[in-house]
Amino acid sequence: MKNFELRYENTRLYFGIDAIRKMERHLKDIKNVMIATGRNSARLSGALDDVETILSKHDIDYELFDEIKPNPNTDMADKLTDVIRKNGCDCLIAIGGGSVIDVAKVSSVMVLSGGNARDYLMGRDIRGSIPLFVVNLTHGTGSEIDRYAVLTDGKNKVGISIRYPDVSFDDPRYLLTLPREQSIYTSLDAFFHAYEAVTSRSTNPLVETLSFEAARIIGNHLPGDHGLENKYHLLYASMISGISLDMSPAHVVHAIEHALSGTNPDLPHGCGLAVIGGRSIYWIDKYSKNSRKLLEVLMSKKIGSPDDAEKAFREFLDEVGFDKRLSDYGFGMDDFKDIERMIFGELKYFLRRVEFDFNRDMLRDILKNSL
Amino acid sequence: MKNFELRYENTRLYFGIDAIRKMERHLKDIKNVMIATGRNSARLSGALDDVETILSKHDIDYELFDEIKPNPNTDMADKLTDVIRKNGCDCLIAIGGGSVIDVAKVSSVMVLSGGNARDYLMGRDIRGSIPLFVVNLTHGTGSEIDRYAVLTDGKNKVGISIRYPDVSFDDPRYLLTLPREQSIYTSLDAFFHAYEAVTSRSTNPLVETLSFEAARIIGNHLPGDHGLENKYHLLYASMISGISLDMSPAHVVHAIEHALSGTNPDLPHGCGLAVIGGRSIYWIDKYSKNSRKLLEVLMSKKIGSPDDAEKAFREFLDEVGFDKRLSDYGFGMDDFKDIERMIFGELKYFLRRVEFDFNRDMLRDILKNSL
Repeated sequence: MKNFELRYENTRLYFGIDAIRKMERHLKDIKNVMIATGRNSARLSGALDDVETILSKHDIDYELFDEIKPNPNTDMADKLTDVIRKNGCDCLIAIGGGSVIDVAKVSSVMVLSGGNARDYLMGRDIRGSIPLFVVNLTHGTGSEIDRYAVLTDGKNKVGISIRYPDVSFDDPRYLLTLPREQSIYTSLDAFFHAYEAVTSRSTNPLVETLSFEAARIIGNHLPGDHGLENKYHLLYASMISGISLDMSPAHVVHAIEHALSGTNPDLPHGCGLAVIGGRSIYWIDKYSKNSRKLLEVLMSKKIGSPDDAEKAFREFLDEVGFDKRLSDYGFGMDDFKDIERMIFGELKYFLRRVEFDFNRDMLRDILKNSL
Repeated sequence: MKNFELRYENTRLYFGIDAIRKMERHLKDIKNVMIATGRNSARLSGALDDVETILSKHDIDYELFDEIKPNPNTDMADKLTDVIRKNGCDCLIAIGGGSVIDVAKVSSVMVLSGGNARDYLMGRDIRGSIPLFVVNLTHGTGSEIDRYAVLTDGKNKVGISIRYPDVSFDDPRYLLTLPREQSIYTSLDAFFHAYEAVTSRSTNPLVETLSFEAARIIGNHLPGDHGLENKYHLLYASMISGISLDMSPAHVVHAIEHALSGTNPDLPHGCGLAVIGGRSIYWIDKYSKNSRKLLEVLMSKKIGSPDDAEKAFREFLDEVGFDKRLSDYGFGMDDFKDIERMIFGELKYFLRRVEFDFNRDMLRDILKNSL
């Protein structure tokens, strides 16, 4: 389990056990930090204690904002921005999964560029931002190395390209306390980053190199026990899927999931992707060679048809113990009209990222088959 | 053949057909450019014409310095620095392979940091540098995306970590005029970047992801015809091997080759690596699991022993039509004492990068078997 560091785009990323120690290199001129977290995992994982210890050692003041919930809405970013301003903080440290990181990305910009979070979902110009450090607590988001943030505005989940973190830390120790279910959901999120990146029209050789490797690792390490070594590999797979996603953004599966978890915020993102993933794969596989190639790597076996591709992915879900359906989250046929309206409305830009014409019949088939 | 761009460390890299057009994005505030090239390939490949057209379009003055030879020595960097100063250039564009790029890296630093090139081989501090753009003309060096430069000082070839290019262009069109022999040599250089990076003690998962993929591509695309699509893949393999090398530098094979081409500058770098590579692989394979793994990917077959590993690599050389020996470059047993002195003297730092104790007996065995 080697440690390494990497600069990709604007992010300096430290990977490996005790990677957090490298934070000390980046604290010059920082006087007053805002730490943004969710309710529990920052403390439970040990990451918050480690960050507090480092800040105290360097006599840096800090405040804690620990209110960020999954599937956050724009109000959360507005609120975090207010407390950063009120406390005069000159640096933001996000400790959490995708929700925490995404809120922090938006707030780090708003502090210097003004406006409300909602304005940025509409394309407001970025004039500046305060430094953002990210301590990543899941092996799914990729947000520690990509430029995206996803926030909910009303019922609409909107993904925007906003900024890269300045410094990120991927330390597998912090993932040991991630509940089993969350581990599966977040790795399935990473899997769909890899899968959608290579089946998008913006795929390229580097996206393929990284995505195929991520699929191989997830196929080998997601089933079975999750000790430190498995966490190390799953975290690496998630990070390189994040680079893939950054170069070649997600499309059909993420679009449908955004509509679903926009409608029901209790649906965890990775879980939503997996629920509709099997049947989505069936349709995407009809039009993309890379779909089959990636599933072959995931499952270490030959796949001969779109039916086989769907079956292979469902076998993988069985193997990892995933058995959720849309109906488990209260969805019924009655909801499909609204979801269809969202996907072919606000979320339509996602669908332009594939080489084929994703149509309403395909969507209806996916939803029906995922109930 | 998709185009893409990437920021790795301090380099913005544009990859693909017509990638050079992206140079226009980076010309703001540039008034007077020095173009550094070798004797012929910059013009022959079409790259120099393309750069001249772009600079003229933007009314940017430029001078041409076209004197850089393979295996360049420190005088060359001193000379280029002088002409940059004399012409008051505020930007350097290197169009060439590793030799041109490496001289340009050093000169771009010397212009603002003073001293002679020799001082930088001894560790002189870098206080600044002028912008450096690189138009890469081989699929071997990796220098367009790494921080290294190799210069000869007397008989000693010295590799230093000096700077990343600011902007690099990997355009496969420019490789169509690369002579067949050069194509083979440079791809074998890329192969050894990948091979040494994963067998070094500083390997890490990303180095392995990129190196194994590079070996797969070189194994598939180096034998056979070299049309544009093959060039695209070989260039990609070389670029990702460059990232691998940057994260995990070369060791035994490069050390020996530096001593050889330091002694005889007519020995092309990639050719020198391949000449001693077979027997070097035999020794490295005894101590490194990744050695065998990478050769298995290169050759798409199982490899059971160090003997097999050496044999597999020699089969690969046969397949690509490489049959050079040390004796073809005038080396004999009489030279080995000097070479041994260099490797266990000035070049000894290379040998500390492997997990095993590389000793004089191993070196003698490699040289004898490569005569």
